[in-house]
Amino acid sequence: MSNSSLLSGVTVIDLSRVLAGPFSTMTLANLGARVIKVEIPGTGDDSRAFGPFHNGKSLYFASINCNKESIALNLKNPEDRAIFEKLLEKADILVENYRPGTMEKLGYGWGTLHAKYPKLIYGAASGFGDSGPYSKRAAYDMVVQGMGGVLSMTGYPNQPPARVGISIGDITAGLYLTIGLNAALYNRTVTKVGSKIDIAMLDCQVAILEDAIPAYDKTGEIPGPLGTRHPSIAPFQTFAAKDASIVIAAGNDHLFDLMTQALARPDLLTDARFKTNELRHENIDVLQKEMETTLAAKTVAEWLVALNTVGVPCGPINDVPHVIADPQVAARNMVIEVDDPVIGKVKTAGNPVKVVGAVDEVTLRPSPELDANRAAILAEFVGVGK
Amino acid sequence: MSNSSLLSGVTVIDLSRVLAGPFSTMTLANLGARVIKVEIPGTGDDSRAFGPFHNGKSLYFASINCNKESIALNLKNPEDRAIFEKLLEKADILVENYRPGTMEKLGYGWGTLHAKYPKLIYGAASGFGDSGPYSKRAAYDMVVQGMGGVLSMTGYPNQPPARVGISIGDITAGLYLTIGLNAALYNRTVTKVGSKIDIAMLDCQVAILEDAIPAYDKTGEIPGPLGTRHPSIAPFQTFAAKDASIVIAAGNDHLFDLMTQALARPDLLTDARFKTNELRHENIDVLQKEMETTLAAKTVAEWLVALNTVGVPCGPINDVPHVIADPQVAARNMVIEVDDPVIGKVKTAGNPVKVVGAVDEVTLRPSPELDANRAAILAEFVGVGK
Repeated sequence: MSNSSLLSGVTVIDLSRVLAGPFSTMTLANLGARVIKVEIPGTGDDSRAFGPFHNGKSLYFASINCNKESIALNLKNPEDRAIFEKLLEKADILVENYRPGTMEKLGYGWGTLHAKYPKLIYGAASGFGDSGPYSKRAAYDMVVQGMGGVLSMTGYPNQPPARVGISIGDITAGLYLTIGLNAALYNRTVTKVGSKIDIAMLDCQVAILEDAIPAYDKTGEIPGPLGTRHPSIAPFQTFAAKDASIVIAAGNDHLFDLMTQALARPDLLTDARFKTNELRHENIDVLQKEMETTLAAKTVAEWLVALNTVGVPCGPINDVPHVIADPQVAARNMVIEVDDPVIGKVKTAGNPVKVVGAVDEVTLRPSPELDANRAAILAEFVGVGK
Repeated sequence: MSNSSLLSGVTVIDLSRVLAGPFSTMTLANLGARVIKVEIPGTGDDSRAFGPFHNGKSLYFASINCNKESIALNLKNPEDRAIFEKLLEKADILVENYRPGTMEKLGYGWGTLHAKYPKLIYGAASGFGDSGPYSKRAAYDMVVQGMGGVLSMTGYPNQPPARVGISIGDITAGLYLTIGLNAALYNRTVTKVGSKIDIAMLDCQVAILEDAIPAYDKTGEIPGPLGTRHPSIAPFQTFAAKDASIVIAAGNDHLFDLMTQALARPDLLTDARFKTNELRHENIDVLQKEMETTLAAKTVAEWLVALNTVGVPCGPINDVPHVIADPQVAARNMVIEVDDPVIGKVKTAGNPVKVVGAVDEVTLRPSPELDANRAAILAEFVGVGK
């Protein structure tokens, strides 16, 4: 058994483009599902045109579409529709991330599909979902980062907000879609019928606000940006050391005690201003100043050794090359190499869903060229060329 | 059928505390699984002590633990261990987020459990996972935000990085854990045996870096913070309007055309500097200046009408009260009210996994008091009090 056996035997037909849908089907593929991308003839998935490129191939596309097959079909053309319907006959899951209403216009709305293929599971991701006043609007990641609240809480006080440096709007929607699809697969073993999962990027942003909604509801305090500080735990942020910043997360009294030992600052432990987390949080400005006075004497690397020795959660601020070089990341196969016939050997992220005792699959099939698997797919699903 | 039927009949025994584990089991509970929290006698889940509080109850705890039951057990006490083992006999899933090795010390390592309960699925979330040089270290959200790369890409150029305003380290791990557990549930219907899913918070941060790894690998450019700008698409950021900032995401040539119409700036469309996305991205400083000259004349509300009328993805920057008040959020039941016997009526986030045609469940059972369900659980699983 390997990591990529959990969904082995599951076939996914994937109409989705760019990020939320393809991120979900990548996750399904990493778990062992067979994913067949159905792309627009000529151009294919829009993200094939997103830079940066290497040897003319999009690295963006390549990073989200390994382990998938590709066939180009025009869903407005009767012959291609017949092929698409043959694919659906044998598929377990259909995924798309069009604006709501698009599939109905193509004659492939859920009512039609469910009647014709009762076991088919259907996953849709869109900006605002299948219902509500904004349903038919398009949204991109940045729009839902702004509307969903996370932007208002990211950045520094009294400065403009910062975007989360990755497309958290799309990616969170892709993860929730995968959760819904896997639950629907399990449910189908019980009920023998498929379900349609309707994921909205905005909904998913609201779902990950932690305690912000009940906390505001009961305290009336509006959560704002806090730089690198945590809203209720201290010290739990970045601090300046001799050469760079370090993250120290002394999240409770015991860890604070250990931290004062690592910093050789017993006075901080007995200081009445820092007795409890609540007091440390209240007096974080002065605590930060005291800590940084000491931290300035040594490098991040030196402090990491001292803090890790006593067991205080801490870490460096890694940029991407340092993430790639990290020994833990390497030991967990979280950066692996794909041998792409166009790009050549290229590093990409591994699969974070590890199955204990199973082989952790590190060989990914490269992202497909547009229509690359046409002949084999037609032979298998339509019987052409047999 | 309701949204919360997909996992109906599934029983989860939940040893997890604070966030990554409880976020996963909340997601499972929202999908219909029965979740029994097994908590330390006396104090329970650490997050019961996290502020802010209302009528003495943690709003943080309340936001992550609705729809769950609670029993207090000391896993070092033989009588409590016997009860715990009775729970495992009938459980489908066990979840914990201790440091790796803790369950082995308790005599409940995967080898032991798998031999005794071969159908049991086991989900573990930790900072660094079950293997690798950092495996035994504790980590908190802020540590993996720093080590995993997202911190290095969030904030403004030449300024200190900003923390993602929510605990993306824990939450992403909770989502991947849920994906793995649901896939393992499906897999068990095929293989008849359970699996252990090993999720590391750091792994999950690496998995969501989009194209950063292959892009750096092939271009050598280190992704850095960009304020609210997107690394490769323009205009796709916040802009200053008359009264506040607005998000405009004109992600392709067609949308840029529509945007120039909404702004009544046909000169921008014909300007050679803005002909393609690549050029707009290259000349974004001057494009932003040109756009803001026009945007300064009207309010965000006025521009949203103009942009939405022509179909350009756009939105306001909502703080939490505006998220709660948004009509789309309301229409999708993404903020719902829980009637908590201690807190009273309190707003919390809804379930973003919508099942089309099913009732969208808006009544959550409030988060349990410590040990609240002891008698009923003992009667059912151990036969005590029958």
